[in-house]
Amino acid sequence: MRLLGLDPGLRATGWGIIDVDGNALRHVANGVLWPEPDAPLATRLVELYEGLCDVIDRHKPDTAAVEETFFNANPRTTLRLGQACGVVILAPANAGLPVSEYAANVIKKSVVGVGHAAKIQVTDMVRRLLPGCVPENSDAADALAVAICHAHHAQTARRVANAGSAA
Amino acid sequence: MRLLGLDPGLRATGWGIIDVDGNALRHVANGVLWPEPDAPLATRLVELYEGLCDVIDRHKPDTAAVEETFFNANPRTTLRLGQACGVVILAPANAGLPVSEYAANVIKKSVVGVGHAAKIQVTDMVRRLLPGCVPENSDAADALAVAICHAHHAQTARRVANAGSAA
Repeated sequence: MRLLGLDPGLRATGWGIIDVDGNALRHVANGVLWPEPDAPLATRLVELYEGLCDVIDRHKPDTAAVEETFFNANPRTTLRLGQACGVVILAPANAGLPVSEYAANVIKKSVVGVGHAAKIQVTDMVRRLLPGCVPENSDAADALAVAICHAHHAQTARRVANAGSAA
Repeated sequence: MRLLGLDPGLRATGWGIIDVDGNALRHVANGVLWPEPDAPLATRLVELYEGLCDVIDRHKPDTAAVEETFFNANPRTTLRLGQACGVVILAPANAGLPVSEYAANVIKKSVVGVGHAAKIQVTDMVRRLLPGCVPENSDAADALAVAICHAHHAQTARRVANAGSAA
């Protein structure tokens, strides 16, 4: 199964693809989309959407997971994050992929073991869990962390489902 | 010139189409998109996007305008509004239309004459300015108000441009 992890942002959106085979995780690709900072909002949203459609088209993931946007103290920032996040969720959903959302502390807990881990700890653990992987930056590492979290939760969900069907 | 006005919301997104010929405005169509309230967020965003693509495909507007999302006191509401708004801006932008944004008080001032007009006043003025028009509800009336505001501003912009080129 191939998983796409996404860390949404209007300035930068990280993406990461991993393959899952039983308990084994394998890094496939990662990167960051940088919409033109001085372009109008509509243009930046189109750049994000087209960039994500291109990633999905090239790597053909089976499922996607997105880091839940946090609420910023500044409502304008929350609104801009929401606009980027809406488009980041739309791209895989419109391509027919199931899309899950995970809170930041759930992702950190799944990858580092604690919900309040620092950014550098997340990048370190991503590199350990995916040997040979070099994340483009911390946004790409966060996106790979979302994919790893999704893999752990999907496995738990499958195990629960199998236990249920065997009972 | 054919204008599409949009009033974004995750629960309901109003849309309205008008034709502008010099100073004359003509109502073409209006409606409301209602994403399934109990569906997952990703499904609701896809329903919004597909609904808007269908409206654009049927009515072929030349340009679009969106009411700027206001900041709600509840950050979760601001975030959800932002997610809907991102998709509502993306649909016309991805279809190649120029997209403008107007603040709610600019729209009200343009249609009613004051920036703090009540919802019912907006609907009344929309029906007077667009004879024969029956808005589906207040969201559709708001969307038609956005289109009227855009027509006024586009005309001013054109007049300024013509004055400039004649000078």
